[in-house]
Order: sequence, then structure tokens, then C-alpha cells
Amino acid sequence: MASATVNPDLQKERQRATFDADQLTYFLYDGPANTRRKRYLQNLAVQETEKYKFRPIATLSQEQQYEQALMRSFISGQLEDRLELKNAKELSFLREAVAPQVAVPYGLHMSMFMNTLETQSTEEQKARWLPLAKSFRMIGTYAQTEMGHGTFLRGLETTATYDAKTKEFVVNSPTITSIKFWPGGLGKTANCCIVMARLITRGHDYGMHPFLVQIRDLDTHQPLPGITVGDIGAKFGFNSNDNGFLRLDNVRIPRDNMLMRYSQVLEDGTYVKPKNDRLTYGTMTLIRSNIVGGAARSLSMAVTIAVRYSAVRRQSEIQPGAGEVQVLDFQTQQMKLLPLVATAYALTIASRNMAAFYLRVRQQIEQGTLEELPQLHALSAGLKALSSWQATEGIEACRLACGGHGYSHASGLPKLYGTGTPLVTYEGENTVMMLQTARYLVKCHGALQQGQKLPSLMKYLEQPPGGSSGLDPRLDLSDLVTAYQHRAARMVSDVSAKLMSAASQGQKPYAAWNSNSVELVEAATAHSEAYVVKSFVETVSTFSGKLCSVMETLCRLYAVRGILKSLGEFMQDGYINSQQAKMLRSCLADLLAEVRPNAVALVDAFDFPDAVLDSALGRWDGQVYQALYDYAVNSKLNEKQVLDTYHKYQRPFMESQWKKNTTVAVPARL
Amino acid sequence: MASATVNPDLQKERQRATFDADQLTYFLYDGPANTRRKRYLQNLAVQETEKYKFRPIATLSQEQQYEQALMRSFISGQLEDRLELKNAKELSFLREAVAPQVAVPYGLHMSMFMNTLETQSTEEQKARWLPLAKSFRMIGTYAQTEMGHGTFLRGLETTATYDAKTKEFVVNSPTITSIKFWPGGLGKTANCCIVMARLITRGHDYGMHPFLVQIRDLDTHQPLPGITVGDIGAKFGFNSNDNGFLRLDNVRIPRDNMLMRYSQVLEDGTYVKPKNDRLTYGTMTLIRSNIVGGAARSLSMAVTIAVRYSAVRRQSEIQPGAGEVQVLDFQTQQMKLLPLVATAYALTIASRNMAAFYLRVRQQIEQGTLEELPQLHALSAGLKALSSWQATEGIEACRLACGGHGYSHASGLPKLYGTGTPLVTYEGENTVMMLQTARYLVKCHGALQQGQKLPSLMKYLEQPPGGSSGLDPRLDLSDLVTAYQHRAARMVSDVSAKLMSAASQGQKPYAAWNSNSVELVEAATAHSEAYVVKSFVETVSTFSGKLCSVMETLCRLYAVRGILKSLGEFMQDGYINSQQAKMLRSCLADLLAEVRPNAVALVDAFDFPDAVLDSALGRWDGQVYQALYDYAVNSKLNEKQVLDTYHKYQRPFMESQWKKNTTVAVPARL
Repeated sequence: MASATVNPDLQKERQRATFDADQLTYFLYDGPANTRRKRYLQNLAVQETEKYKFRPIATLSQEQQYEQALMRSFISGQLEDRLELKNAKELSFLREAVAPQVAVPYGLHMSMFMNTLETQSTEEQKARWLPLAKSFRMIGTYAQTEMGHGTFLRGLETTATYDAKTKEFVVNSPTITSIKFWPGGLGKTANCCIVMARLITRGHDYGMHPFLVQIRDLDTHQPLPGITVGDIGAKFGFNSNDNGFLRLDNVRIPRDNMLMRYSQVLEDGTYVKPKNDRLTYGTMTLIRSNIVGGAARSLSMAVTIAVRYSAVRRQSEIQPGAGEVQVLDFQTQQMKLLPLVATAYALTIASRNMAAFYLRVRQQIEQGTLEELPQLHALSAGLKALSSWQATEGIEACRLACGGHGYSHASGLPKLYGTGTPLVTYEGENTVMMLQTARYLVKCHGALQQGQKLPSLMKYLEQPPGGSSGLDPRLDLSDLVTAYQHRAARMVSDVSAKLMSAASQGQKPYAAWNSNSVELVEAATAHSEAYVVKSFVETVSTFSGKLCSVMETLCRLYAVRGILKSLGEFMQDGYINSQQAKMLRSCLADLLAEVRPNAVALVDAFDFPDAVLDSALGRWDGQVYQALYDYAVNSKLNEKQVLDTYHKYQRPFMESQWKKNTTVAVPARL
Repeated sequence: MASATVNPDLQKERQRATFDADQLTYFLYDGPANTRRKRYLQNLAVQETEKYKFRPIATLSQEQQYEQALMRSFISGQLEDRLELKNAKELSFLREAVAPQVAVPYGLHMSMFMNTLETQSTEEQKARWLPLAKSFRMIGTYAQTEMGHGTFLRGLETTATYDAKTKEFVVNSPTITSIKFWPGGLGKTANCCIVMARLITRGHDYGMHPFLVQIRDLDTHQPLPGITVGDIGAKFGFNSNDNGFLRLDNVRIPRDNMLMRYSQVLEDGTYVKPKNDRLTYGTMTLIRSNIVGGAARSLSMAVTIAVRYSAVRRQSEIQPGAGEVQVLDFQTQQMKLLPLVATAYALTIASRNMAAFYLRVRQQIEQGTLEELPQLHALSAGLKALSSWQATEGIEACRLACGGHGYSHASGLPKLYGTGTPLVTYEGENTVMMLQTARYLVKCHGALQQGQKLPSLMKYLEQPPGGSSGLDPRLDLSDLVTAYQHRAARMVSDVSAKLMSAASQGQKPYAAWNSNSVELVEAATAHSEAYVVKSFVETVSTFSGKLCSVMETLCRLYAVRGILKSLGEFMQDGYINSQQAKMLRSCLADLLAEVRPNAVALVDAFDFPDAVLDSALGRWDGQVYQALYDYAVNSKLNEKQVLDTYHKYQRPFMESQWKKNTTVAVPARL
């Protein structure tokens, strides 16, 4: 992984850290034993993958990227078999190292497709389908989104109409907007597909239900009759994956290809309603907690690259004539990166705590208690949005903080961004997510007005309005939490009052909702941020020794930076006053200086192998310029000194210009 | 350009506009005659280019992109000849339409290279070189940036050492970090190059000077001895351009290949200093004003795409059961896009006003007055940074506001972002730019303390501190300008006080500068924003009739949105109070609703042909789904139903999995 010599600036950074980065790594990977196991798996994966000498993914055409991704899946599959891996975390570490930020075409098969079969099929269906799916006879994907329809599920147009005579469903894309669009692996890889379609039986439309539709011949892989399927073309990222479209023209499937664990259609066409569909919320929450974790992980990679490079990169002087300094010594550079290091930890911790909360709620559900489900659901929507926004903005900020070289694919940062940014719009568009959270917050506020008690995460709404912050230069952690909670409570209360006032003026609730939706999103964001800060504070308090004080500083940096970013929201009701605002600005400068010496150790602790970062700038050994040069020299354009295009296009163009100026004398050398 | 049918939603939007979009177009393109000429040129260019049936640039490999860009240059060159175009604006409209957001390899030849020859050569050198450059015998580029050195020019390492015996300079890249890196067209296209190198003569280092270095044989195009040159590999965007690296190993060039208009080296090696180098500031300012204009134009394209798509896209309901609405009717969507429409106009206007200011200052300089140059220079640095930040963030916000489809290259938005975002780091990294502006602001503040009068743009710093804003719900435009100026003045004063207090505590000025640099950047940003708002207000006041009231509303939206975004900075000293903050939030909602009906007309006024937008979502006719489907169907991956990769990789992988489960019965159909 490392070359013989480590850049001395980077070495010095590691020596001057005030805490043991390994201790933090153990926290991130659940102890020394699991950390060792993670390292073993990732090293093995890296070694195995290096044998193939893959070209950087960004230098390949779409077809070549797709081909490489299939090969990577092959490598991963073989290793998984050999090691008999089953544990989800171990699998994710292995796959991360075999295909770092490379979207593999079997991705949706192994997640959404299998998952839906397992959770939505009857036992009989599972027995029939799972062996086929697990052994890759069926390679599936999950087709919900249509060209004209995404987040608003009731708008989906695909139909599955039951024909009682043949005991089949007839599946159709009635319009161009109803064509299924975007599912990963759908274009060229999958031979079957869960299709979400409006179930129509006996002339009645029962809305969205899942159907298993075979789309390609299991042997020849040719599309079946009535199926038009293909790749959707080049995208901003994810080009190794064949996101596809699917048009269904009177495709007939057997009745029992409808996934019937919940709803059913009997042979005669009778529709049988599900008993309880609240449990499906749970799965969605789990997916969202994975998104929060994934967002945190992408941001962790980006800050690792940018911080290491900023420790190695010397540019400009601070003291005139005293030589160029590490760019990490500039306060402006610290301001760009150190709050993002803090954000990476804040989101990592929030995702862990949310996952733990999910497990607790699931246990409760199994015991018949649904009480905490709504607040978990609201939290998961808000955190999904907040984390994906903060992470993808953060990745871009890291890229820009690497100057010109960040723009080269050699930096690894464009790839991280291309893979990370879809999180903002998929699995629930972020603004819609925040509005879901807001709806719950407003509901809680209403309940409070009626004297009801609120569930655990919402208790803070009960504090009386007004008052002023106790924040002083000591930056007590609980004062920071209280400030975030006060601001969220104030915003929920303000926007609730506006909704009520609109109602009292005769405005329809839905119109009032829309005309206050900007503030509703802001309130939901404030609620989500309050959770992240609280969660960060609670977790670092469990640390001890030097690590504890380092992480407390990082936590303060995250919280203070967040307050200053939205300062008006904290000052609007006078909760934070002018003196405190000034004081917080000074504290921010101090916190940056305090975190600075530990910056490299804090990113080292994420423990990413070089191959996972896939970055000339983020290398463990800091030998960035040689790596950048090697990347350049290997450009496809350098395979020939003089390209064919020179003779085909450049030279003729030049000659056409010469003809206009035949009198110009051309020397052999200038 | 348009299909027979325009989407009815879009048609309705155009009918309900309260002003004549053409009037605004005439403002943007300097009157009806120039607008017609622009349309004529762009239509011709589009028709000519369509004959080549180019594939979308994003679907091509790097080599293919490079090839296509060369072809586009060829088309453009032929048209320019045929039409005998000389006018810079006309050329830019033509090139925009032939190669929309496609970086052409001759770009730097036609701009920086020619420009430098013209401004830095002696008359004798011009007579020798310009005919060669104009007739494309020499194809040049401009090599300044090195692998390890960018914005800090004194850090550059390349040397040009004078050898009086042979009357030559010996040009060298002494280290890996000194390798020239990034210049456009350098990798494969250019045969010569302006190399910025440290001039060393008679044992003395005189710092950076420009040298003309031939790098490839003019006939065979092979690199000359001592030259290692090549492409730097795949980047986030700009892949149609061969950004290159250049390593110089004792390359000898004649003495008079040094560009000697200002400094000279005599035959015996004597160095002759330039008389006055202040004029070079002027050119830099012009380049920056072009960047501001370019940033504005990219953002204008992005908002055109996003606004039109949001008028056509129907998703989710506002009134339950009343059907899906245009997403532009959601307040949250308006909030994402309408302030960006305002920003596009604000930056367009700022760039025009800055260019006019530049012309005035240049006239003054020619008359021997340099008084206004420093404030112009400071303004240009700040606006370069502000505009590129606002534009590139805005383009991304537009992309995300298009939901999932924004992520497809079919939307045109990833290309716009890839081409736009380098503005943040090139031609002076933005943070460094803002710090240059800040240095001038602090200097002005110091001059003020000593009772001196300030130049025109800085006068506002003279207003006494304190006081409170007169802003009320009428949102008087001059109150908005005053608010921005007050905030900037307060921030300049605060940070100046911190610098002085640090000095009085014995801190070195450079250390104090660094430890306050975050606030210095914020102050410079505030100054730049104040200019943009003032410039917007002054310009819209010259409009008349309905257009005037529409543009005043847009101007208010820009200003109010900006205040709320940085509300804490306006509230910190009590200048804006809690009631006003609340009032501004309500005004923002009203302004969004007011601008909403004119949204489509406002973007139509930018008058971009469909081919320039190159977007399935931004089409004039609004037929977005058919365009998106056509784009998908044309994916390279769809040329075969079953790809070779299926047989090569997927099938073997599947079969390796089957072997583990030989007992599974596989049906012919599921």
C-alpha cells in the first residue's frame, strides 16, 4: 500500500497528533478484533483485484466501464464463496475494496430484488424463487420509478390487469411517461424484474403492487415478446451500471407472479386486502439508515484525501520570504476542511445511533408496540436528507479545496461526487423527505398545544419559548445541544403558528402547507441537525482520555460552525445575542487551531486502504506528485506521440488556414 | 429547433407572462439589430453543425471527445472565414453554437497565446510571430501552472538561464513539481508554447518572464529533443481538451524568444528592467470580467433548463385528489430556482457594468491617471470569485431541482457543471482572490481612519457605524443597497479592528492576517455582494414599463434572498432586528409568488437555441419525455441486444454460481 518513503510533512503530522488514531479506528469498526478482520478482508480484496490491473474507471468508455464492473463482481463473488462470507458488514468491506465507488450491475439484484422477494413473497413463492435468485439463474432488479413519475407513488401509471379467464396478469406501459426508467442493472444485465404496477381486477384499481416479471430468456438472454428494454445512456456517474428502461406491451404473467405476502388476488379475481402494512415502514427506515452511513463514509473518504493532500501541498507564504507552507496552515483551508472532518464523524455517529434506535423500535414492534415508529420514521426521513446534502456538498468542497488537481480524476474526488450525489434525489427526494419530517413535527406541536406528552425525541419541543442561551466561551456541550433544540422548537412553533393563522383566515390547509413549505423544510432541517448534534455529544461523552478531549473539540467545531452558518435562525428571537455571536466567531477560529494538529490523525483513523481511496492526492505515503505524473503519463491519449486525429483533422485544418496566407515564411525552427 | 407541438403547460406559461420577453432579450444582446444578428449566426452555426450528426459528448471516450472537438473547431473556422467574422461578441456567439460547452483544443491558442504575443512581444517579434500564429503554423498554448505551483507565482520553479556564449536561453524543469501541468491544448495539439520561467542571467534570478518555446516539429508534429509532453488524463469535465504536461530538459531557445516588450536581456546578458508594469493589471481585469460574464451565461443556461422542465413536469398533488401539478407551483421548487434566475440576471448585469468600468479606467490610464485602477482590480478579484461560486453552486442546484433526470447527461446539466466548476479554481483560486480584495478593503479602512477620502466604489465605507435599517414591507430598493453596504462596512471595520488589536498585542501582521483570514474572506464577499446588488438596482431603474416592474421584483428577490442567507451578518450589530427578519421571510414568500408567473418568460429571454442548451429537459417545445426516451434508446449499450460482455463475463459468473446449486430446477419461464 505505501511506498518506501513517506512524505516528511505527513510523517510529522502523524507524530504530533495528541491521541492514538488506532483507538478511534477501533471505535469506528467495533473493537480491535473486528478492525483486524476488516483489514484482513480489505487487504485480501485489494491484492486479488490488483492482479487484474484495471484501468481507472474514468478513462473508460461506458461499455468498458460496464465490462470492468462485471469483472469486479466476478472477483468479489469468488472471494465471498472462498471465505464463505455471510455477515453484512464483512460483505460490505470486501465489496468496497474490490469495487471502490464502482456501481456494479448486480447491485440491485443483491439488495432490493432479493430483499423484496424475501419480505413480500409468500412462503411458497420464496421456496420457488429464492434458490433461483441466490444461484443467479434469475438476475433481478426493482422497477418502480417511471419516466414521468418518481417520489409520488400514486402517480405511477404501469398497470397489471387481472384476466380471470387465463388466470394471468396483463402488464402494460400505457404511455411514454409510464416507461420504467432508472433501475440499476435493468438495461442489459437483469433477466427478471420486480415491477411495481397498479393492480386492476374486476374493474377496480387497487394501486401499487409488486409483480415478478421475466424480461429476458434465461438461456439466450434475448428480451421476451412484449418487452422493450435497454440502457438509458451516459450519466453524471454510475456509468459502470446499466441503469435501464423497460416498456411493457401486454406482457402476460401467471397470477402467482404477484408477490402475495400482504395483498392477494384469488383465482376468480377477488382482491384480498393486507392485514397490516405498517411493518413495511421499518424496512424503509433501515435503508435510510444505510444511506446516512453511506453518505458519512463517502464524505470520510473525501476528507481523508483533502486533508492528507493539504498536509503535503506547500503553496504560498504566510510569513513573507519564509518559504511556502503546508496549505493546512492557512486558516481559510482549515475552515474548508476541518468542519467537514467533524461532519464526517457527526454523520457516522448519527447513522450508528439511528440504526440502534431502529433495532430497539423493531423489537418493540415485535412485542406489539408501535409507539416509537412515527418519530423514527420522521427522523429517518430528515437524516436521509440532511446527511446526503451535507455529505455531497462536503465532497465537492473537498474537491475544490484541492485546487486545480481536485478536478483531475486522478484525485478520486470527481468519482466520489458522481457516486455520492444521487443520494440527494433517490430513495425519496430530499425536499419531500424534509416535508415528511415537517408534517410529523407540526403534528407533535399540535399535540403539545392540546396538552399531550410527546415521545422521547420530541420532548424538547415542550420547553417554553423565549429565553436566552447560556453559551459562553467554555462552549459547554449541553449548552450547544440546548441551542440547537431551542432553534428547532422556535422554528416549529413559528411555522405552526403561520399554518394556524392561515387556517383562521380561511385558507385551505393544503394551500397553507404549500405556501409555508420553505419554512417547513427549514424547521425539519433544524430538527435533524439538533438530533445529529445531540447524538454526537452523547457519544463523545462515552469516550475517555485524550481521545475524549479531541473528539469533544471536534464536536464543538461541528456545532459552532453550524450555528454560525445559520446564525440568523439562532438570533431571530434574541436567543443568541450580538455578544455571543461575536464570541462564537472567535471560538471558531480557536477551535480550528485546536483541531489542526490532529487533522491527519483524525482522517487516518477512518482506515481506508489506498486502493479504496483510489486517489493520487490522498495516498497514505503522501507521494502525490509522482502519482499524479504516473496517472498523466498513462492517459490513453499518450499511447501514440502523434494521434491519428492529427492527420485526419488538425493538419487539414492547419493547411486550410495556410492557404489563406501563402506569403508567410515558415522557418524549420522558431 | 422546435417540434410541431409545444407542450400546453409551457405554452400557457408564455401566454400568462406579464411582460414582453423580447424586450429583455434586446437588453441582453444590445438592441433588436444585434439580437437578429446573434440569432442569424447561431442558427447558421447550428444548421451547419447538425449536418455532422455528432454523438452526445458524454457518451464518447476521451479520444473520441478530442476528435469531435477538433472537428467542431474545423466547422467554426470555416464559418468564421466564410462570414469574415472579426467582432469578438459575434465570434463568441458563433463558437457557442458550434461547440456548446465543448472545450476546443485551440481555445488557448486563440485566447491566451495570441493575446500574450500581442501584448508582451516587441514590434519586431510580433511581425515575426503573429502571421505564423494567425495562420495556424504555430499552434500555441500558455504554460504557467506547474504540478506543485499555481496561484503563488513566486513559487514557480521552471528556469530559463541565459548562456551568453551561444546567445541562448536554456529552459529547464529542475524537479517533478516544476513540470508544467494543466495548460489546454498542450498535450497533443500545440506545437509551441509560451513558457513562464524564472529568468536567470549573470547568476541573478529575475523571477517570472515569458518565453516562446517550440515543443513539436512544425511538420512531423513529433516532440523536439529535450521535450517530454503529453495529455494529463481524464478529468471531471473538459475531456474534449488535451490539457497537458510539459517537462523541459535543457531545451535551448534563441535569446530573442524571450518576449521582450517590457523586460529585456541584452546579448551580453545584461538585464533591462521594464519601465512600468502596472498596465498588465488591466488585461487581467478584462479576463476576469469575461469570467464573470461566462459564469452568468452558464448559470443562465442551467436555469433555462430547470425552469422549463419544472413547468412541464407534473409531480405530486398540492390539493389532495386534484391531480398532479407543475412542480414550479411548489413553493420549495420556486425557492430552489427563482432566486437563481435572479442571480443569473444579477451576475450578467454586474459583468456588463464591470466591463464598462474597465473601459473607463483604461481610458483614464491612457490619459495617465491610475487612481481608479486599485479599486477596479479589487472589484474584479472579488467578482471573479463571487460569480463563479454563485454560478457553479447554482448550476448544481438546478441539476438537483430536476430530480433523478438531472443526473442523466440527457439533461445537459452535468456537462454545464463540469465545464463551469473549474472557474472556481483557475485564473486565481477564489479564496486567494477574495483575500486580495480584502487587502484593499482593509487598506481603504486604514486610509479612512487617517481622514483620507476614498475612491468612488469605496465611499460607502465612510458611513458611520451603528444605526438601524429602514427596511419595511415596501422593500425600497435603496434600503436594500444600504443594507448590503452597511453589512460590508461593518464587517470590514470589525476585521480591521481585530487586525489592529492583534498588532497592538505584538502579533506579527502576517500572522494576524492569517488568523483572521476567514473573516477577511467574508468581508470581501460582503463587499462584492454589495456591488452586485447596487449594480442590479441601478440597471433595473433604467428600465421602463412592465419590464421595469418585473425586473425590480426580481432584483428584490435576489437581495432579500441574499440577506436571509447571511441573516446573522446583518443582525449581528442590530442593524436588522427580529421584526424585520420575520418581515423579510414573509416578503420572500410573496416575491416567489410574484415572480412565478414570469419564470418561463424570464428564461426564454436568454434566447438560447435548443442546440446550445443541448438538453432533453430544457427544450423550447417542452417535449421532454420523448427526447429523454430518444436519448436512452441511442445509448451505445443498446447497439446489441445481448452484449459480448454477457458471454464473456456475466454468463461464466452465473454458471459458476449454478455449479454450487445443481439441485435447483430451472424453468424455461418463471
